[in-house]
Amino acid sequence: MKIVISCAITGSIHTPSMSPYLPFRPEDIAAQAIGAAEAGAAILHLHARDPETGRPSASPAHWKGFLPAISSSCDAVLNMTTGGSAVMTLDQRLEAPLTFAPEMCSLNMGSMNFALYPMAMKPRDWRFDWEEPFLRTSDDLVFKNTPRDIAGVLQRMGTERGARFEFECYDVSHLHMLRHFVDRGLVDGPIFLQFVMGVLGGIAAEPEHLIHLHQTAQKLFPKFEWSVLAAGRRQMEFAAIAAAMGGHVRVGLEDNLYLSKGVLAKSNAEQVEKVRGIVEALGRSPATADEARALLGLKGRQVYA
Amino acid sequence: MKIVISCAITGSIHTPSMSPYLPFRPEDIAAQAIGAAEAGAAILHLHARDPETGRPSASPAHWKGFLPAISSSCDAVLNMTTGGSAVMTLDQRLEAPLTFAPEMCSLNMGSMNFALYPMAMKPRDWRFDWEEPFLRTSDDLVFKNTPRDIAGVLQRMGTERGARFEFECYDVSHLHMLRHFVDRGLVDGPIFLQFVMGVLGGIAAEPEHLIHLHQTAQKLFPKFEWSVLAAGRRQMEFAAIAAAMGGHVRVGLEDNLYLSKGVLAKSNAEQVEKVRGIVEALGRSPATADEARALLGLKGRQVYA
Amino acid sequence: MKIVISCAITGSIHTPSMSPYLPFRPEDIAAQAIGAAEAGAAILHLHARDPETGRPSASPAHWKGFLPAISSSCDAVLNMTTGGSAVMTLDQRLEAPLTFAPEMCSLNMGSMNFALYPMAMKPRDWRFDWEEPFLRTSDDLVFKNTPRDIAGVLQRMGTERGARFEFECYDVSHLHMLRHFVDRGLVDGPIFLQFVMGVLGGIAAEPEHLIHLHQTAQKLFPKFEWSVLAAGRRQMEFAAIAAAMGGHVRVGLEDNLYLSKGVLAKSNAEQVEKVRGIVEALGRSPATADEARALLGLKGRQVYA
Amino acid sequence: MKIVISCAITGSIHTPSMSPYLPFRPEDIAAQAIGAAEAGAAILHLHARDPETGRPSASPAHWKGFLPAISSSCDAVLNMTTGGSAVMTLDQRLEAPLTFAPEMCSLNMGSMNFALYPMAMKPRDWRFDWEEPFLRTSDDLVFKNTPRDIAGVLQRMGTERGARFEFECYDVSHLHMLRHFVDRGLVDGPIFLQFVMGVLGGIAAEPEHLIHLHQTAQKLFPKFEWSVLAAGRRQMEFAAIAAAMGGHVRVGLEDNLYLSKGVLAKSNAEQVEKVRGIVEALGRSPATADEARALLGLKGRQVYA
Ligand SMILES: [Zn+2]
Ligand SMILES: [Zn+2]
Ligand SMILES: [Zn+2]
Ligand SMILES: [Zn+2]
Repeated sequence: MKIVISCAITGSIHTPSMSPYLPFRPEDIAAQAIGAAEAGAAILHLHARDPETGRPSASPAHWKGFLPAISSSCDAVLNMTTGGSAVMTLDQRLEAPLTFAPEMCSLNMGSMNFALYPMAMKPRDWRFDWEEPFLRTSDDLVFKNTPRDIAGVLQRMGTERGARFEFECYDVSHLHMLRHFVDRGLVDGPIFLQFVMGVLGGIAAEPEHLIHLHQTAQKLFPKFEWSVLAAGRRQMEFAAIAAAMGGHVRVGLEDNLYLSKGVLAKSNAEQVEKVRGIVEALGRSPATADEARALLGLKGRQVYA
Repeated sequence: MKIVISCAITGSIHTPSMSPYLPFRPEDIAAQAIGAAEAGAAILHLHARDPETGRPSASPAHWKGFLPAISSSCDAVLNMTTGGSAVMTLDQRLEAPLTFAPEMCSLNMGSMNFALYPMAMKPRDWRFDWEEPFLRTSDDLVFKNTPRDIAGVLQRMGTERGARFEFECYDVSHLHMLRHFVDRGLVDGPIFLQFVMGVLGGIAAEPEHLIHLHQTAQKLFPKFEWSVLAAGRRQMEFAAIAAAMGGHVRVGLEDNLYLSKGVLAKSNAEQVEKVRGIVEALGRSPATADEARALLGLKGRQVYA
Repeated sequence: MKIVISCAITGSIHTPSMSPYLPFRPEDIAAQAIGAAEAGAAILHLHARDPETGRPSASPAHWKGFLPAISSSCDAVLNMTTGGSAVMTLDQRLEAPLTFAPEMCSLNMGSMNFALYPMAMKPRDWRFDWEEPFLRTSDDLVFKNTPRDIAGVLQRMGTERGARFEFECYDVSHLHMLRHFVDRGLVDGPIFLQFVMGVLGGIAAEPEHLIHLHQTAQKLFPKFEWSVLAAGRRQMEFAAIAAAMGGHVRVGLEDNLYLSKGVLAKSNAEQVEKVRGIVEALGRSPATADEARALLGLKGRQVYA
Repeated sequence: MKIVISCAITGSIHTPSMSPYLPFRPEDIAAQAIGAAEAGAAILHLHARDPETGRPSASPAHWKGFLPAISSSCDAVLNMTTGGSAVMTLDQRLEAPLTFAPEMCSLNMGSMNFALYPMAMKPRDWRFDWEEPFLRTSDDLVFKNTPRDIAGVLQRMGTERGARFEFECYDVSHLHMLRHFVDRGLVDGPIFLQFVMGVLGGIAAEPEHLIHLHQTAQKLFPKFEWSVLAAGRRQMEFAAIAAAMGGHVRVGLEDNLYLSKGVLAKSNAEQVEKVRGIVEALGRSPATADEARALLGLKGRQVYA
């Protein structure tokens, strides 16, 4: 059975000081995204960053810096975050997705704490001024995704622009919230769940939690595809478990900066290659972008000029 | 083994139009609280309401309307909410607890959606103007309990005023957040978990979820007491399961207005009596207030003048 | 929703020395069975005993001692064990069911150890010679229920005589074995699972095991009814959990001799009354025998002459 | 963390007609065992076969055919089955282990059905006469491991000969049975659990079952090492899950004849190499035989003359 490898290229959690390989200049984001696609990623989960400072950005101009290059150089599914960074308002987070109308975007199924401050505890030479306070103040940060917000994204991105969603579920309650929207008739087409594990504020990365999320989904949804990402050091372990269970996987520097214990990944492609080796050893082969499109009912590739 | 019955007298979820028995005048709150204690509740979980309109209130003056009567008429543990209502700021929510320094207060272990709007869908004669918009606008309501908020409550109510906590856990992630605070050394004394199930925005009231929460707690905490409340129609079912598993239970009109299908509870005491019958049939007897104090390490009863 | 209360009157596990109320004379078995039915049991799970010594018996003559009285005095479903006692051969175990062709019989879904010897460790005045060795030698006892045995019972009792089954599942593997027989097309009609917990050799009586058995059944069978019995002191606790979960319950002196801690049940009816109180407090009412027949697709009541 | 790879070379389940690579001549068993050790297996789980017909054998003479060669050519832990084949009596099964007194032997923690007959359903050219009836008659086969049997093996192999055990647990009840023996003081030293999944008669190979077995073990045993084998096509998937969870793994032709879908493994070593690739990708390295000995508290290597 084909496995959809998603790769989350840069995200909004890690900061440049944590790894020299975390891409934030548009040309680096594009190059790593294209490399990840070549290595076997069918879906590229994308965030923008300020090209000068690496700070997470919602600006359509910053997105514009890499979308054309990626979309013209590979046929991977471009999945634009609507989560942006937890410090942005929803209107900010939606500006670029509304502008570029991608075939897929992420959608977080609940409001939650998003606590990055433990990452600021380790002494470090900070490359940019914004990094440490950005992390430290996350102790008072609410990542707001209310039912009204969710309904709005479903309407504006889904109904109006034809996107399908990577439904990011950080805990059991998020699955029930998604079911609530299914019951309200607001969710259309194949359901693609992303179990997000290991963020402080969400469910921890423990195998029994993955099983519980999966069993809950089986009860709530007659049919669905699911993927898992474990933030941090258990990334590959959870990818292996998901692959063994028949799920899909997400890797990438957004979720984990390392390739193995103590060894930074030099690129997103390195993580894709590694997970590809594991899934192939388990007898599964990576879905192509078009196979992922068929499985998830996507509207199709778009090349941005 | 003794079972601690908590009774949540009025809360901030239901509105006066939903039941004529939901107490909001101070004398009614006091009478029902005292009745619940007489029926076997060792802990009274309390919220204040505006005496005129029944609207959830954080005003110390409103608390003052019933605390003296309750505290002088029964020896139950007075547990003051720090959750108040999700529409209040934390400073508002803390004003009364800081003033009255109770031996116990509730503490929600995460930010979350708190979606009451499905209750506004049913046609109803609204008794007060605030009720319907209060419920409807909960579709954009975040119940904010960030790590900074939590640390603040632990410090100000716990360390400084000697309160212990009813740690309200609405999902698996909340248990991991509590563990994070244990690891930081900010949680003192016996841990009392309240698994809150059945709120849209939190985990649903399903038996497998209760087991999963319980198993997770067993892994995270070497020692703890736990209780469960299921909001809505499964209240008694989950009380029975908890009682059978060796846990404690919470009932009360905050969580459910009914006594049985289609039959409104005429008082909090009715629910306490009912759950008492179930737990006694299971061979357990209700803890007295002092037995609850010993079990949970509380600083002791205080009579408010 | 109606709840089917099964009552297992005497079984083949406990011995007369353990309780003076354990019925073994035909008139006592009949009287207690009828009393249990009057108290609310829809199904009477029956074993025979030697009238002189109380030893488990497979003799049709011993069955004949109480079947006519029970079947003419109440309309409860008569459920004849095909398990008999683990010390009997299958041919012995089947002799009476083949003779009387009841509308329901039990069927154990696997071979297993059935270790009663811990009950012989407690010093006791033994009333009959057979009791202590019967218990002690269970350390080398295999309760044999091979696939060939199971297929034979399905054929001879089910296909040929129209019985439906109480599928006794003592562990997860037994559910998979049942599914194997469903796949082979040998199981007909509504499936009625009895989760048997707390026997040494089977799964222990722990709430997480019940949930796991239930979740496994939900995956294996599109539709089924289920009941639970916990052997020993947790009998009522598991009945309460099952009732709260929407399942059915089994009580009776076969499974537990006590009514509450340290208090022997004076009759099977006492346990039925007690569990009835719990399930009614949970808003459910006991199914009548005919309601149980309809739910489980039984062929109908038979009065034995 | 080091991972102990066990390899079960030939077992007593598969028959020669199923794969030309299933070793049964002593020189083949020895060669494949040595190859497996060289490929990274720290423990060799061994059965004997009749050199002429490949039929499972308990004869010390047949064991003698390969034990000297293996024990002198590699330092892997030799783990002698006490399960033999379910068609043998326990006395037969124990004859060789009593003779050779290995440092480790397997011990099945319960009596059970062991249904191999579905493997006889597929049309096949049978190489030996015994094969088809051996498989077909397993529909009436009880694999007998009563508490008395278990106590005897613990005493004779453990206490008297210093062996430690691979406790083969085919279902949840087997873990409780092991705990019963721990409570009786009959189990000594580090506990090494082998979760055996996918045999008809035991628990099926499903990820949620593995999690449940593991969680049950965590409650029952303060400290233990655990490994998993999935019989059949999910062998590598469960090895990957176990490796990701921190457990150990067992592979080998006893459990599965294939290397990947439709491709027979040409040797046990091929499976060891494959699983080694997976576990190394997960950041773990295979334990050497001596590391396994230290972890499991074994008495030490013995070279058979
Ligand atoms: Zn993202
Ligand atoms: Zn409250
Ligand atoms: Zn029985
Ligand atoms: Zn073996």
